[in-house]
Amino acid sequence: MKIGIIGATGYGGLELIRILHTHPHVTEIHVFSSSEQDIQISNKYAHLVNIIDHSLQPIEIDRLKELNVVFTGTPAGVASTILPALIGTGPKLIDLSGDFRIQDPAIYEAWYNHKPAPTDAVQKAIYGLPEWNKPQIQNAELIANPGCYPTATLLSLLPLIKEGLIDPSQLYTDAKSGVSGAGNKPSQLTHYSELNENFSIYKINAHQHIPEIEQTIETLTTKKPLLTFNTHLVPMTRGIMATSYAPLANGATQQQLTEALKTRYANEPFVRIHDNKPVFSTKQVYGSNYCDIQVVVDPRTNRATIVSVIDNLMKGAAGQAVQNMNLLCGFDETAGLDLVPLMI
Amino acid sequence: MKIGIIGATGYGGLELIRILHTHPHVTEIHVFSSSEQDIQISNKYAHLVNIIDHSLQPIEIDRLKELNVVFTGTPAGVASTILPALIGTGPKLIDLSGDFRIQDPAIYEAWYNHKPAPTDAVQKAIYGLPEWNKPQIQNAELIANPGCYPTATLLSLLPLIKEGLIDPSQLYTDAKSGVSGAGNKPSQLTHYSELNENFSIYKINAHQHIPEIEQTIETLTTKKPLLTFNTHLVPMTRGIMATSYAPLANGATQQQLTEALKTRYANEPFVRIHDNKPVFSTKQVYGSNYCDIQVVVDPRTNRATIVSVIDNLMKGAAGQAVQNMNLLCGFDETAGLDLVPLMI
Amino acid sequence: MKIGIIGATGYGGLELIRILHTHPHVTEIHVFSSSEQDIQISNKYAHLVNIIDHSLQPIEIDRLKELNVVFTGTPAGVASTILPALIGTGPKLIDLSGDFRIQDPAIYEAWYNHKPAPTDAVQKAIYGLPEWNKPQIQNAELIANPGCYPTATLLSLLPLIKEGLIDPSQLYTDAKSGVSGAGNKPSQLTHYSELNENFSIYKINAHQHIPEIEQTIETLTTKKPLLTFNTHLVPMTRGIMATSYAPLANGATQQQLTEALKTRYANEPFVRIHDNKPVFSTKQVYGSNYCDIQVVVDPRTNRATIVSVIDNLMKGAAGQAVQNMNLLCGFDETAGLDLVPLMI
Amino acid sequence: MKIGIIGATGYGGLELIRILHTHPHVTEIHVFSSSEQDIQISNKYAHLVNIIDHSLQPIEIDRLKELNVVFTGTPAGVASTILPALIGTGPKLIDLSGDFRIQDPAIYEAWYNHKPAPTDAVQKAIYGLPEWNKPQIQNAELIANPGCYPTATLLSLLPLIKEGLIDPSQLYTDAKSGVSGAGNKPSQLTHYSELNENFSIYKINAHQHIPEIEQTIETLTTKKPLLTFNTHLVPMTRGIMATSYAPLANGATQQQLTEALKTRYANEPFVRIHDNKPVFSTKQVYGSNYCDIQVVVDPRTNRATIVSVIDNLMKGAAGQAVQNMNLLCGFDETAGLDLVPLMI
Repeated sequence: MKIGIIGATGYGGLELIRILHTHPHVTEIHVFSSSEQDIQISNKYAHLVNIIDHSLQPIEIDRLKELNVVFTGTPAGVASTILPALIGTGPKLIDLSGDFRIQDPAIYEAWYNHKPAPTDAVQKAIYGLPEWNKPQIQNAELIANPGCYPTATLLSLLPLIKEGLIDPSQLYTDAKSGVSGAGNKPSQLTHYSELNENFSIYKINAHQHIPEIEQTIETLTTKKPLLTFNTHLVPMTRGIMATSYAPLANGATQQQLTEALKTRYANEPFVRIHDNKPVFSTKQVYGSNYCDIQVVVDPRTNRATIVSVIDNLMKGAAGQAVQNMNLLCGFDETAGLDLVPLMI
Repeated sequence: MKIGIIGATGYGGLELIRILHTHPHVTEIHVFSSSEQDIQISNKYAHLVNIIDHSLQPIEIDRLKELNVVFTGTPAGVASTILPALIGTGPKLIDLSGDFRIQDPAIYEAWYNHKPAPTDAVQKAIYGLPEWNKPQIQNAELIANPGCYPTATLLSLLPLIKEGLIDPSQLYTDAKSGVSGAGNKPSQLTHYSELNENFSIYKINAHQHIPEIEQTIETLTTKKPLLTFNTHLVPMTRGIMATSYAPLANGATQQQLTEALKTRYANEPFVRIHDNKPVFSTKQVYGSNYCDIQVVVDPRTNRATIVSVIDNLMKGAAGQAVQNMNLLCGFDETAGLDLVPLMI
Repeated sequence: MKIGIIGATGYGGLELIRILHTHPHVTEIHVFSSSEQDIQISNKYAHLVNIIDHSLQPIEIDRLKELNVVFTGTPAGVASTILPALIGTGPKLIDLSGDFRIQDPAIYEAWYNHKPAPTDAVQKAIYGLPEWNKPQIQNAELIANPGCYPTATLLSLLPLIKEGLIDPSQLYTDAKSGVSGAGNKPSQLTHYSELNENFSIYKINAHQHIPEIEQTIETLTTKKPLLTFNTHLVPMTRGIMATSYAPLANGATQQQLTEALKTRYANEPFVRIHDNKPVFSTKQVYGSNYCDIQVVVDPRTNRATIVSVIDNLMKGAAGQAVQNMNLLCGFDETAGLDLVPLMI
Repeated sequence: MKIGIIGATGYGGLELIRILHTHPHVTEIHVFSSSEQDIQISNKYAHLVNIIDHSLQPIEIDRLKELNVVFTGTPAGVASTILPALIGTGPKLIDLSGDFRIQDPAIYEAWYNHKPAPTDAVQKAIYGLPEWNKPQIQNAELIANPGCYPTATLLSLLPLIKEGLIDPSQLYTDAKSGVSGAGNKPSQLTHYSELNENFSIYKINAHQHIPEIEQTIETLTTKKPLLTFNTHLVPMTRGIMATSYAPLANGATQQQLTEALKTRYANEPFVRIHDNKPVFSTKQVYGSNYCDIQVVVDPRTNRATIVSVIDNLMKGAAGQAVQNMNLLCGFDETAGLDLVPLMI
């Protein structure tokens, strides 16, 4: 398997390299960049010395067509100018950006402030949430790899909404992310001296992942949600926690909610449902492709608190992308991804 | 002014020392401990060398009576065994623990798993939230200094509930705290290697500050709230953010909510209302007694997101305690507290 | 006292504001910037709301002449273009940059890669290390405020070299700094995701503070040192530790070294000499103007390990600058600086 | 291959589990604990749910004899009471503690304050530094896995001393470690609120790794060193940097030192020699088994600065232990260890 990574110096790209280097079916990794070329990637990132010493290449369609899988880990609006020309030409395509996730171009434009991707490409794109879309993914030409926040939020909420156990019209998700989600570009917000020992809320009620979450809930459960969703920056590098709240529906009980999650994910290798944990933490999944979920019903308020954690660079980006690659290519779904979390 | 601090080696106690050392009306600081005695506090905490070199003293009622103000920064259940005997004997009494905050002993016992304080002492105790209780505080014999989470939550919610701008029956507060809130006792949860690069939720739906918040909302607004409240541990030492959510009431608008906050706190030196900040952070108040608040109405969902930040050791503990001392003693409310936050 | 701060949005400038806001003799703080003007400093730094709400002003000599003290906290090469014109015109001048510290212009140019300041201004400048230069500082027109690393290194080494207790020809200083020393400009090196959970060495054998340290040792002890000096970046915001090593000279003993330090600094309010501490930490001085020092003789190797810690923004920059202002203006040396460290 | 890990809940043990779970030749991992039994390890460490759900077992010699390899990751003085009885009974033995590293029992006792291991077991133990001891390791019955600090220090110094390029009688190593090196037992020193934003020196001139380093230098180079060695705690979880200093010997040049390192390690898969890196960081090797080294000669002082970084839990403990297992068992030396560092 020859793999190409466009945007290889971004954090999604670097994490793809980390996973694919030990993937049993990957023989070649080629790295591409639109902004930097002809420099060794290991010159820029010393951790890759002796691992990937070849140079960043310019993006040329003919060159890309020779590969088996092409990943794009590029800023908003870049993949939509590259991938449409590759559809149907050979390589499987997996986009880690948001370019192909939103079906309605007007909604995309409103939340992303960007020109949408060509409509036919968007319509061909399959939303790559394997636990919910496996058959479609296996036959896809182009995968829209889910956003980090949506992955954590959706995996925990979908079974409860689908089974009618919580009220989708009164959803609140309070999400928190490590800083790597902001990418590798330095800024005042991510400047160490100002972000360290600091906890921030940003894009209040306005994060572009909101329409992605609502669209997916509606598609997969046929119920129309109304979600308040906020995002916070935690002074750490990796990890997302989504804490969600909703009123119980139809007299649902603790046992019913926990069972709904356990049943739904009984055969899914990367989702773990927990019970009665007094403390629940992002480090449970650090560096791995797991999504850990726990739900706690509050009989006093008749509401549920639903907690899920992922590593934003793994299940929230590169890990899920490789999971999608495995499905697209007919490999074992866990190939290259059977990694133990770094609890310390 | 002669000050006594019981529990001086706890973090509330250490922060009181930090503030009171430069307080213009404080001449003597005496340090007491129930667990450690006859050792210099600067032997245990090297930052106090040349600042407070005298020894920790045992807790003797006669000794305490000679002081002008006695603070208790002790674990749950300790102040309730010390302070009742001091009421009316001379010193002003300010308890930083939760011992005297909950009026109903059954509720205290249910949430704290502890024997409640003597009822008459609890009834004499004034809840020390100066922005809402100033006259009662000025004449109090015993102050129940508010909890850290309640301070952040209440200051932001009270005006909005009182003015009927949000629905108190559908309140959600997602709170996040630095680790110093857990005190100075080492534990697996607060062990550096496991907490670093980690974000955790704990005491899901079960934090003992819930009845304190609900009781105070009801007392001060005469409206009965129903609050879902959760607490998270952020890998940082200081700082609390409370992110609260509620449906708008009575067609309330962004402008009405912001104005309600600005009007209510126009003359309060330690509450700052912000507008339109794209990022809102705990470091805005680091090391200071400020509570910063911003509200953002979401017209799409007809709900409000209300954010407030404090330094948990300052406005959430020792700073507010000194603010209460200033009011009790007739000093300028800001004496010793006019500190610029450490943004870096 | 009317104070002007040029470069007020830099970290040295922000820390000056933090100190001077509560300084008993300061009535007005004016903020200047060469790069940003007519914006409220509190718009850029929300922690200053209600504290300093006036606007950043352009740098005009006539405006500056009306002030009592002018601080410059500007990048290398800026103060040397502003301050010479102000010498003798009224305001006391204190430069926090390295522009006036190096007496030999060739050495300045070699290490700073910058045009040196005018020679007559450099010759008028007094090196503002109060514990060693107090009389000259009191009569100075222009203070060259010492660098952060030199302050920590010199205060610990000078008494031992001067008393002939260690060998100045075999000096090694291994210095470590929090990230705020790198200033407020975002860069790849100080990008949170890459610096967090990371410890780096930088400018190996090439830091521009080397000639400042060697020049000062030679000036103040008349002995010629040969120093190997390296600098490391610690994933924290504030704090410097300088760990120095040298062979003992003349059969010197643990007691002699400790006594030399204690005697030398017996009357210095900001230097604290410790004994027998099993752990020695930067947090002992966090947010304060202290320099804490401990020396440990190793009889096995016949060498001394000398440890000193400061807060790089305080004793290493703004705190020491205010200490110099106090001396220049005839105030108590500790005015505005009697701050308890934030151990937590 | 059936593997046993004694002390599986310690950080060395947990890291062994992380590596061995994906090791191509390991089929069973058994976990033992002297202090905790009959509880699932995944109950204590949630990151192991679905990965290792079996229970901690008591330490029984007959049970251990059935295994192919036994690792001990226990506190000082424990392995020396367990492993001697297993020598020659079947399993390969690899001890991650210091029990079998020091040849002279008097020196062990002086630095460890502990009863030494039985002399014959110590004499059978091979010091497991594969880059220097490969043939002996391949035939060993018992491996004394090197300490974390010694690994970083020795790999960088040994070639330079052996080739006569630096003076071993004037060695200084200033070492810095992440906090996981202190193990999993909570203490005041490792309490998050006090260690965060803090940098400390500890065990000044007295770390028990000093005799291990000196003994190994003497054994492997036949030159007698005199080393000043100090250790610091960095507010991060993983990573060690050893910054070493020594005068150049015999007119050695930059090129000679770099070439000596490159030549010595040309065929070693886990040692990478760097050139001219302006910044050198522990994250280059995070989560991997690499040791990265750079030397910078200072012509001004005629001394060398030698920097090496490892992940203390990998090349400094569990990674090197698995490397030793690979050699003992005749596997590829990199089996299970070909991991890309987590730069972010």
